[in-house]
Amino acid sequence: MMAARKQLSLTAFLMRHGHHVAAWRHPDTDLVSPPFEVYRDAVQRAERACLDAVFLADSVALTGAPSVEPVTLLSALAAVTSRIGLVATATTTYNEPYTVARQFASLDSISNGRAGWNLVTSDNAAEAANFGRERHVDHAARYARAREFHDVVDGLWQGWEEGAFVNDKAGGRLLDSAKVRRLDYRGEHFAVSGPLNVPPSPQGKPVVVQAGSSETGRELAAATADVVFTAQATLADAQAFYRDMKGRVERHGRAPDSLRIMPGIFAVVGTSEQEAQDKFGLLQGLIEPGAGLALLGRMIGNFDLSGYPLDGPLPDLPVTQDGQRSRQQLLTAIAQGENLSIRQLYERIAGGRGHFTVIGTPEQVADQMQAWFESGAADGFNLMPPTLPGGLDDVLRLVVPELQRRGLFRTRYEGTTLRSHLGLREGK
Amino acid sequence: MMAARKQLSLTAFLMRHGHHVAAWRHPDTDLVSPPFEVYRDAVQRAERACLDAVFLADSVALTGAPSVEPVTLLSALAAVTSRIGLVATATTTYNEPYTVARQFASLDSISNGRAGWNLVTSDNAAEAANFGRERHVDHAARYARAREFHDVVDGLWQGWEEGAFVNDKAGGRLLDSAKVRRLDYRGEHFAVSGPLNVPPSPQGKPVVVQAGSSETGRELAAATADVVFTAQATLADAQAFYRDMKGRVERHGRAPDSLRIMPGIFAVVGTSEQEAQDKFGLLQGLIEPGAGLALLGRMIGNFDLSGYPLDGPLPDLPVTQDGQRSRQQLLTAIAQGENLSIRQLYERIAGGRGHFTVIGTPEQVADQMQAWFESGAADGFNLMPPTLPGGLDDVLRLVVPELQRRGLFRTRYEGTTLRSHLGLREGK
Ligand SMILES: Cc1cc2nc3c(=O)[nH]c(=O)nc-3n(C[C@H](O)[C@H](O)[C@H](O)COP(=O)(O)O)c2cc1C
Ligand SMILES: Cc1cc2nc3c(=O)[nH]c(=O)nc-3n(C[C@H](O)[C@H](O)[C@H](O)COP(=O)(O)O)c2cc1C
Repeated sequence: MMAARKQLSLTAFLMRHGHHVAAWRHPDTDLVSPPFEVYRDAVQRAERACLDAVFLADSVALTGAPSVEPVTLLSALAAVTSRIGLVATATTTYNEPYTVARQFASLDSISNGRAGWNLVTSDNAAEAANFGRERHVDHAARYARAREFHDVVDGLWQGWEEGAFVNDKAGGRLLDSAKVRRLDYRGEHFAVSGPLNVPPSPQGKPVVVQAGSSETGRELAAATADVVFTAQATLADAQAFYRDMKGRVERHGRAPDSLRIMPGIFAVVGTSEQEAQDKFGLLQGLIEPGAGLALLGRMIGNFDLSGYPLDGPLPDLPVTQDGQRSRQQLLTAIAQGENLSIRQLYERIAGGRGHFTVIGTPEQVADQMQAWFESGAADGFNLMPPTLPGGLDDVLRLVVPELQRRGLFRTRYEGTTLRSHLGLREGK
Repeated sequence: MMAARKQLSLTAFLMRHGHHVAAWRHPDTDLVSPPFEVYRDAVQRAERACLDAVFLADSVALTGAPSVEPVTLLSALAAVTSRIGLVATATTTYNEPYTVARQFASLDSISNGRAGWNLVTSDNAAEAANFGRERHVDHAARYARAREFHDVVDGLWQGWEEGAFVNDKAGGRLLDSAKVRRLDYRGEHFAVSGPLNVPPSPQGKPVVVQAGSSETGRELAAATADVVFTAQATLADAQAFYRDMKGRVERHGRAPDSLRIMPGIFAVVGTSEQEAQDKFGLLQGLIEPGAGLALLGRMIGNFDLSGYPLDGPLPDLPVTQDGQRSRQQLLTAIAQGENLSIRQLYERIAGGRGHFTVIGTPEQVADQMQAWFESGAADGFNLMPPTLPGGLDDVLRLVVPELQRRGLFRTRYEGTTLRSHLGLREGK
């Protein structure tokens, strides 16, 4: 059952207009259709390419263009797909665990075992003001809450034992109450009795994804996650991260392949290298300074950079309490290492946001992915299409078939659940 | 546009096995299919009958059989229907308004203007223990929070002005930020900045339904609701409630027909009166004392009746702080007026739970509905099928056509939004 995986995991990280900060200005981008229609088409394409899952980010505040709440959206998409996994982001900082456990268990029931929860701690300080707080919860406190939050959700998901449903009409017994466990969790942050009021998951329990890469984030993931989504700019960094994470997982008493490590990849694909460069150039030329600066400010930990000269260096910044500590570190290292101005730095991250970036032919992109996969840097990739639908199509129609020809990716689904696509044991 | 409505509004209040407390034991009830499949079939049937909406109750604790969270479920159902309205219940007591505003705005976007929110304050005391509280929030405090909660949600829904989307690719302007209003709400219970990160509603804003009928509940509904769902046992009581509510609405400066009053109806339908009585008898014979007692205990305000003799009278009870005050009053009045024992009372409410109950032929049921509609007792009805799918089919195939023959109900949808089905003005 758990044969060594020789194939990549691939998920599509979808954004309403695509990942490039100027994607909405691209001639092909559809600004008018309702979000559901745009995502429906994209997910159905991704399913035809046999991807493991689609992946949606989230923020509980307005940043950029409005969209729809990801669990609600994926639930509607569950009804118009049959195999592809459905991973939504939900924060532990401004939610309640009973509510989140219930939503993902519901998505899992509706989709027949295809749900995944990307557990995040909120990297957008503006969220605080939508939940009655003057300031964002700081980094350490967010992670302390996240750990308990995870444990409550996990406990609620496991409250239904095998055989809990008796379904004895004649005898008048619907449930065996001895097999429906209360949780009675009492922690620092939460007190939750349970049981959850949703039937048990068709895949044991939903998949847990995590996307924090600071020291604290790594420890949480090593203890609790099935998949880690991470931003790595170079092969060497990715290898170091991979080794570090697999080691931590073992120290937590888990099998190394029970955690799948999936860096993001921002690939701009053309039938020739020149075509790919031209596509990228078109998008880069559409970046407005205001939008670039706002994106950079969020990515380095929620700092306002508007007072600094665009063509001057990135100022020294305190370690962020509000945002992503790992991303702040990644981007300041790039800026210092290459001596980039603020403008050059936002141009650098306008597409990939610091993730692995490849611009080239399908063969060149596949070569890079293969190199990372075969040299202990990745178990798979979270694909970040530059535009939607064009940039997604390029990857699905050009890169995926190339990976399939190389035997690196499936040509049809074997299982029906997200856990089976990812090669993970049934949850328990 | 707002011509006097001569037709009924009809919604289907769906429960996993049907409304009768013993429905799950009925020979026709499917205990095995996933909830989504059961509901999909039911909603598609209801749409073929041109009903205004389906309606789902909710509780954030396990009571009886587990199911799936209603917004998630309706979102999946939105993808497999095109016209019928989708109303889900969500409590103001154990949620945050930014989250609820976002979920219903998302459902509304996904369904193209068919969403409704049934605002409740939680009548199930067991919910408290899933949200870190030792005791349920008391009645007055629940309603005080509910009023603010509503105002925040409503304000967030209205944050997007006409023309907020500029969509100017060449000029580099996606949104007109002057037309995206912050809310900056500061109340006793909530501080919420906004704006909401979901595009504006296709029907102006989602429909707001309310289901509290105590003095405080009526005032909240008169000030804020589009639809009131209410439990009324007799024509005279329903007329008094109807007059009272329309008067309150006017005192709040609103047009009386801007609030639709919809009592629940528990109808057991047979092709002959005897067949209907036999159907009802079959269900009544399946009631177990434990289940009947538990239902009654919840309905009279979360009191444990297990210590009292089944064939003795209902004890005197203090006014409930935890549950539905109006339902407690309704049921104690029935018990005292008719001198019912505890067993007789739970048998009385095992199907209709105190709602208007009719057992008879399609003509007899339609006669009763017509009488209520034409004598100022109801603008429509929330249909409570005894079993699913059988009891729903009986109403849709036998009663609805009879109402259509009488010109009391539509034979095809005219509009596309829930507001238009209900004859309500576009929300703003
Ligand atoms: C690749 C990646 C994607 C992320 N996506 C989101 C997201 O969609 N929403 C969110 O609130 N936080 C997101 N985060 C941030 C996580 O919430 C993370 O827990 C938090 O910012 C702390 O990050 P750190 O451990 O890297 O410091 C993401 C982080 C990474 C590394
Ligand atoms: C017909 C009806 C249906 C209701 N449905 C629900 C429900 O699904 N979930 C819930 O928590 N409360 C429900 N309630 C209770 C409401 O939350 C109500 O606000 C609260 O119990 C107080 O009721 P009262 O104003 O009648 O005292 C319902 C109430 C009525 C009258």
